[in-house]
Amino acid sequence: MDAVRRLGHPLCVGLDPHLEHLPELFRRGDMAPGGVQTVAAVEDFLTAVVERIAGRVAIVKPQIAFFEALGWRGLEMLSRVLKSARRQGLLILLDAKRGDIGSTARAYAEAYLGASAPMPCDAMTLNPYLGRDSIEPFVQRATTEGCGLFVLVKTSNAGSGDYQDRPLKDGACLFEQVAGSLAEQALGMVGMSGWSSLGVVVGATYPEESQRVRALLPKSLFLVPGYGAQGGSAEHAVQGFVPGPDGRLEGGLVNSSRAILYPAAGTRADAKGWEKAFDEALQRSVDELSAAVAG
Amino acid sequence: MDAVRRLGHPLCVGLDPHLEHLPELFRRGDMAPGGVQTVAAVEDFLTAVVERIAGRVAIVKPQIAFFEALGWRGLEMLSRVLKSARRQGLLILLDAKRGDIGSTARAYAEAYLGASAPMPCDAMTLNPYLGRDSIEPFVQRATTEGCGLFVLVKTSNAGSGDYQDRPLKDGACLFEQVAGSLAEQALGMVGMSGWSSLGVVVGATYPEESQRVRALLPKSLFLVPGYGAQGGSAEHAVQGFVPGPDGRLEGGLVNSSRAILYPAAGTRADAKGWEKAFDEALQRSVDELSAAVAG
Repeated sequence: MDAVRRLGHPLCVGLDPHLEHLPELFRRGDMAPGGVQTVAAVEDFLTAVVERIAGRVAIVKPQIAFFEALGWRGLEMLSRVLKSARRQGLLILLDAKRGDIGSTARAYAEAYLGASAPMPCDAMTLNPYLGRDSIEPFVQRATTEGCGLFVLVKTSNAGSGDYQDRPLKDGACLFEQVAGSLAEQALGMVGMSGWSSLGVVVGATYPEESQRVRALLPKSLFLVPGYGAQGGSAEHAVQGFVPGPDGRLEGGLVNSSRAILYPAAGTRADAKGWEKAFDEALQRSVDELSAAVAG
Repeated sequence: MDAVRRLGHPLCVGLDPHLEHLPELFRRGDMAPGGVQTVAAVEDFLTAVVERIAGRVAIVKPQIAFFEALGWRGLEMLSRVLKSARRQGLLILLDAKRGDIGSTARAYAEAYLGASAPMPCDAMTLNPYLGRDSIEPFVQRATTEGCGLFVLVKTSNAGSGDYQDRPLKDGACLFEQVAGSLAEQALGMVGMSGWSSLGVVVGATYPEESQRVRALLPKSLFLVPGYGAQGGSAEHAVQGFVPGPDGRLEGGLVNSSRAILYPAAGTRADAKGWEKAFDEALQRSVDELSAAVAG
């Protein structure tokens, strides 16, 4: 939270290398998904992105699916990109939505959390469907390694209504049940910033639901997807935020991927043109979110 | 299902390389998680396992978490192990429990399903928490590529009660709601074997629940974890099965990982001793499950 407070905005930049959206400037060869050339093109692109955002945002959120789609070479490349991001002062929140039990959950935690992990990240996202015992191994590792966790509660997609919104017999609906069941654990993990290292994912597209989750989890950071390309406004994105020590709203990270990574003006631009288009798109989100948290 | 019918048992062998359980015979160096030596040791072990099970079981289930815990080198190694397994006639069910939306779900599907995937598998497991629109991109890819899917419904762990067993206002509980919402799609994906390529995961530790899921999904194959090391008996594991054309019970795959991969007698054995211990453990499960499906 220190970096977010210092920068004055909660923007998190999603690193989602969609091959079909990659600007002309970076494309190489036939861009076949498993190819060495494709991996090199994506690495050039993300390296340039990381350079441009360093110092202007606190944290990046690589979506690991896009790297897995490039095969093991994609993950080797992600390791390098993240090492470079870390060197430039960026925090790393891995969007992996992992969920499993016992020793399998431990293996996932050891893969991504802490300095000794082969791909060290500062935080990661988790899927709670398997139950609280599937969260526990991640909590243990996050606690010893000083990392953060974001558990899916109410996601930004339309289909999040299918199960997450189901009313339960005892009144609440499923996403509130999930949030409520994390409450005690979350309070036990509050750190120096006043915020817990056990956070949740709540979509910008559901501002009312996000206030209900905030009531259940007063100290949990929200990771808010769905701002920008998915249609959630900056005001909706910060609905679950609360006034911080400096008067600004705080309590989470608002992710934007496509709107920043692939501005239309950068698609066919040369190097200078791409930098300009990228910087403008970044600044637009920074300004919008800075205004939204200023209240 | 052809291979399962030919072999006369539904055993699926889980490839879960737990470093701490690796037999002495295969260990090298200090077995540090990210190390090249460790990856080579695991590869030797799994290559030997694959050789011993080829022709005796239809399918293997690599748990990708254990490979991710070895970093990108672990995934490179998994690619090689799976290529060798495929050459020896084994089908591959990747236990990845992925779940995400839109283009991210598509990226996961492209990573693992179909011949053009960088790591081609015949089937994979999915987590439904994000809703039906998170399943759809996998269904599309599985349909065009002739692959199978197994959606988590009722998992084998104790914590599966936390959310999956929650009674909903309208009577059913969450896992039944998830199963029911897949019913129409599953019926639309029935193939020549009479079984659907949209299957579900139902733990051997919950035989009663598995019968309820079978009533909702008459044509879906079950992937049944929890048999063996997790305490589910062979009889419980096949509770959701139904009589097939040859009179034997069919309708799913029963997974065993630890009980086969790490028999106590193989821990400190030499090569011959390890082979003997492994073969005996494999035969024990084959015999138990063959008897269970014989009814």
